[in-house]
Amino acid sequence: MRGAVVYGPRDVRFEQCDDPKIIEPTDAIIRLLATCVCGSDLWPYRGIEAVQEPAPMGHEYVGIVEEVGSAVGTIRPGQFAIGSFFASDNTCEICRAGYQSSCIHRELMGNIGTQAELARVPLADGTLVATPDLPSAELIPSFLAASDVLGTGWFGAVAAEASPGKTVAVVGDGAVGLLAVLAANHLGAERIIAMSRHEPRQQLALEFGATDIVEERGDEGVARIEELTSGLGAHSVIEAVGTQESMMQAIRSTRPGGHVGFVGVAHDVELPGEEMFFSHVHLHGGPAPVRRFLPELVDLIWNREIDPGKVFDLTLPLDQVAEGYRAMDERRAIKALLWP
Amino acid sequence: MRGAVVYGPRDVRFEQCDDPKIIEPTDAIIRLLATCVCGSDLWPYRGIEAVQEPAPMGHEYVGIVEEVGSAVGTIRPGQFAIGSFFASDNTCEICRAGYQSSCIHRELMGNIGTQAELARVPLADGTLVATPDLPSAELIPSFLAASDVLGTGWFGAVAAEASPGKTVAVVGDGAVGLLAVLAANHLGAERIIAMSRHEPRQQLALEFGATDIVEERGDEGVARIEELTSGLGAHSVIEAVGTQESMMQAIRSTRPGGHVGFVGVAHDVELPGEEMFFSHVHLHGGPAPVRRFLPELVDLIWNREIDPGKVFDLTLPLDQVAEGYRAMDERRAIKALLWP
Repeated sequence: MRGAVVYGPRDVRFEQCDDPKIIEPTDAIIRLLATCVCGSDLWPYRGIEAVQEPAPMGHEYVGIVEEVGSAVGTIRPGQFAIGSFFASDNTCEICRAGYQSSCIHRELMGNIGTQAELARVPLADGTLVATPDLPSAELIPSFLAASDVLGTGWFGAVAAEASPGKTVAVVGDGAVGLLAVLAANHLGAERIIAMSRHEPRQQLALEFGATDIVEERGDEGVARIEELTSGLGAHSVIEAVGTQESMMQAIRSTRPGGHVGFVGVAHDVELPGEEMFFSHVHLHGGPAPVRRFLPELVDLIWNREIDPGKVFDLTLPLDQVAEGYRAMDERRAIKALLWP
Repeated sequence: MRGAVVYGPRDVRFEQCDDPKIIEPTDAIIRLLATCVCGSDLWPYRGIEAVQEPAPMGHEYVGIVEEVGSAVGTIRPGQFAIGSFFASDNTCEICRAGYQSSCIHRELMGNIGTQAELARVPLADGTLVATPDLPSAELIPSFLAASDVLGTGWFGAVAAEASPGKTVAVVGDGAVGLLAVLAANHLGAERIIAMSRHEPRQQLALEFGATDIVEERGDEGVARIEELTSGLGAHSVIEAVGTQESMMQAIRSTRPGGHVGFVGVAHDVELPGEEMFFSHVHLHGGPAPVRRFLPELVDLIWNREIDPGKVFDLTLPLDQVAEGYRAMDERRAIKALLWP
């Protein structure tokens, strides 16, 4: 098969690789119908995370199950299935509490690589969720979004306790931030403030349910949120960037007793203890337990109640994966979908 | 009247001061029946917080209301009343959400000073909670505990979501940590691990409901909690110290999806963003909104269902306030009660 391999900063190649094989009896092999480039893939791409040796890339995937190991019971060949960036058993105590991305048997799909024609999915029964039937092609981008960016935005909104009557602010206008707007809207938030200075992203935020757009950032952004909330701050703030500035912007935009849901992978972030103490905010986040939400998200997409696939504004054949990275790196695209 | 004034490191004097007067029509004057020395009073006492000029001390208080301003409606002279370290209106949106210590009109009682014979209490209707009748003398230490250490330990346990079926660990064996044990027990926690290496404090923790004692600290303490929880960590951890080591010990002792309630005033603490992200814990804390819990705590004490006054293991007349500080500084006393 062929797949994407990163060799170093801004050097992603599409090349011949070994076909994946069943290793554990709980594995499945999936033939990818769609995959994509994640904001977090840009960290190694930009050289911010070091690349020690050529490594497979990608961790978002939907496709047709091709083969299953002898211990796989519920997932069957021929099904259309969606997984997320951590394989998980979905049975341990941590999974049952809804934290499948901290499963005691978790495996990082990014180490396997899904920007490829085929992928091995460990713990297939726990990891994969199948659709009721084969979906029509126009639903595939939305199911692919559920694999990571939708599930991550959803977790951000749940962690921030977005709910009816609340004002929710979203820091970050990447695919995750935009889908956090969609999630907050679905969860019934009264007012949703998208923080974005990019016109096409503002438009998509409004389509997904944002009621206000704030273009200011940092302290000025915090001041605008304060103005919009009678000086108190938002009830819920979703952080979907992962920098020091965005984290502090999120915390400072939240009222005492409010909730910050942070889902941007934190890089070089230090949270000042004393300010956290006096802020009185709730802080929760981390790698989204997408698996917790997948059954509900699959239903919503299958029934066409949400259309998260709109975040893909660039579609390329998988052999042009390098152009997908370039377009996202240069912010020419919100998110690039790749067809194997 | 006479009261305690801090002049500099380890220099607390008991001296003649002006009698407090009603300034705002919402004020009350309270004649103190008991006050005490708080762990947080030791920060300026030890010179860790700079003392710029002689300042009144103390923020824990119970007593008899002596006089009320013209706008005070529910609190009446002659009542026995308890307040906490922030005066609060108890009517603003933040108070109604249960965060009275971030009230938009809050005033810090520590700036007024309650290690004295009399004290002015701002926003008396919002701040003070009166007992049903004058209490018998043996209940006074428990009501005094409710003013801060009990309310703070209680908030820690609530912020950590201590509840039936859960394993709760408590970092810190000062009065707040010990009363967090009592709170976790009252909230129905299945197992309560007190982290303490001081025998008399271990004893009190066991009396308050601890089921296990862990003497190790830091990484070794974390390893012991892991051993006691099938490798997963505690569901709930209450942090009642406020140092870098204790915060990291609390966070690392908590399982993914678990809750850290932090109530030790954070000094020189930096929380590493990436570790927070991957820890998957919920973090919440800050200056306890004691007022939220006071009506319930007053009931529990009035009905003799809890006995938090046991944390006072030293009782002195108020004119020996300096000895109260010394005894707590040298850890000869858990907590010093002062009778004016």
